[in-house]
Amino acid sequence: MDKGRKTRNHILRESRRLFTANGFQQTSISQIIAVTGVKKGNLYYHFPSKEELGIAVLLDAAEEFSAILDRSLTGADPIRKIIHSCQAIMELMRQTHFAGGCLFGNTALEMSGTNPRFGKILQDVFGNWTEKLQAELQRAKNSGQLNCNLTVESLAVSIVAILEGGIMLSRVYENQKALEHCILTIKTLLDPEQT
Amino acid sequence: MDKGRKTRNHILRESRRLFTANGFQQTSISQIIAVTGVKKGNLYYHFPSKEELGIAVLLDAAEEFSAILDRSLTGADPIRKIIHSCQAIMELMRQTHFAGGCLFGNTALEMSGTNPRFGKILQDVFGNWTEKLQAELQRAKNSGQLNCNLTVESLAVSIVAILEGGIMLSRVYENQKALEHCILTIKTLLDPEQT
Repeated sequence: MDKGRKTRNHILRESRRLFTANGFQQTSISQIIAVTGVKKGNLYYHFPSKEELGIAVLLDAAEEFSAILDRSLTGADPIRKIIHSCQAIMELMRQTHFAGGCLFGNTALEMSGTNPRFGKILQDVFGNWTEKLQAELQRAKNSGQLNCNLTVESLAVSIVAILEGGIMLSRVYENQKALEHCILTIKTLLDPEQT
Repeated sequence: MDKGRKTRNHILRESRRLFTANGFQQTSISQIIAVTGVKKGNLYYHFPSKEELGIAVLLDAAEEFSAILDRSLTGADPIRKIIHSCQAIMELMRQTHFAGGCLFGNTALEMSGTNPRFGKILQDVFGNWTEKLQAELQRAKNSGQLNCNLTVESLAVSIVAILEGGIMLSRVYENQKALEHCILTIKTLLDPEQT
């Protein structure tokens, strides 16, 4: 990787950490400069404004999350794939001790109403996630594995909502139990017999 | 109501609106002064610091939410009570067009990690809400109305999580569909036959 690309990635990762922990608006450019050790001119060479940096951090995190989702949607059948992907999200959160929660959920609550560019990226992140789940749910329904009166759309939206709400609660309570309860509920929704 | 109490309530309501829409940290004392028309000295007479004002706003909103919950937990049986309370939350959100979302969810993501006093109030808000649901679920289980493999604790935590996640998604998408899907899922969890 060339030096410019390395610097850009370094700024993106450190900024993501700060945005996740403290929010976009509470993070200052001077904090980012202090944490990354990158000179102001160099930072502005890569990202002409704080808004551009925020957009780039969200897009970078969205790309990574999409790849994690694809990798974690593995298993013998669609239901196991979805449950496996929920467990991968639990693992992600555990790695950070739920300290910052979910960057997308946080930014949604902080920025989606006030900045339409941020709002659009968040719609895409949650929309793509929902679509991937919905495709697996449709396969499970078609094969007769899923017996649920809900539409696959209702189920897919609700799985995203339970996980995001569970991450928020686990952050508030400072332990992983809330998200564990939520994942058990998802299992029950998908396969009432097996819980 | 005496004049001092009226002023205090006026400050609390307007500050709540600003905190919900823009976050606690992004709201400045001068904004609150501009919106309320209350003089700086008078504001500080009622609330000695921005943190104290934030705490008072959360406690005031928590008391109101608890009363709304109690009033909305009505119906012929525990399951109908819970569903009715979910619909009351939908109604609350509809009144504000999902613009600010949930003050508690927002503040949880913004402040619970960095300010332990805020964190404690949020733990109480979500804890009390969960306990009220859990008590109804236990009654439903005892009477044989609830047939679900999940513990009442898992179910209660998950209902709070689905609603909070659904409010967040409805805010991102700027329409009420996500929360509607979530409420359908709660109905299915509580009464799989009737959906």
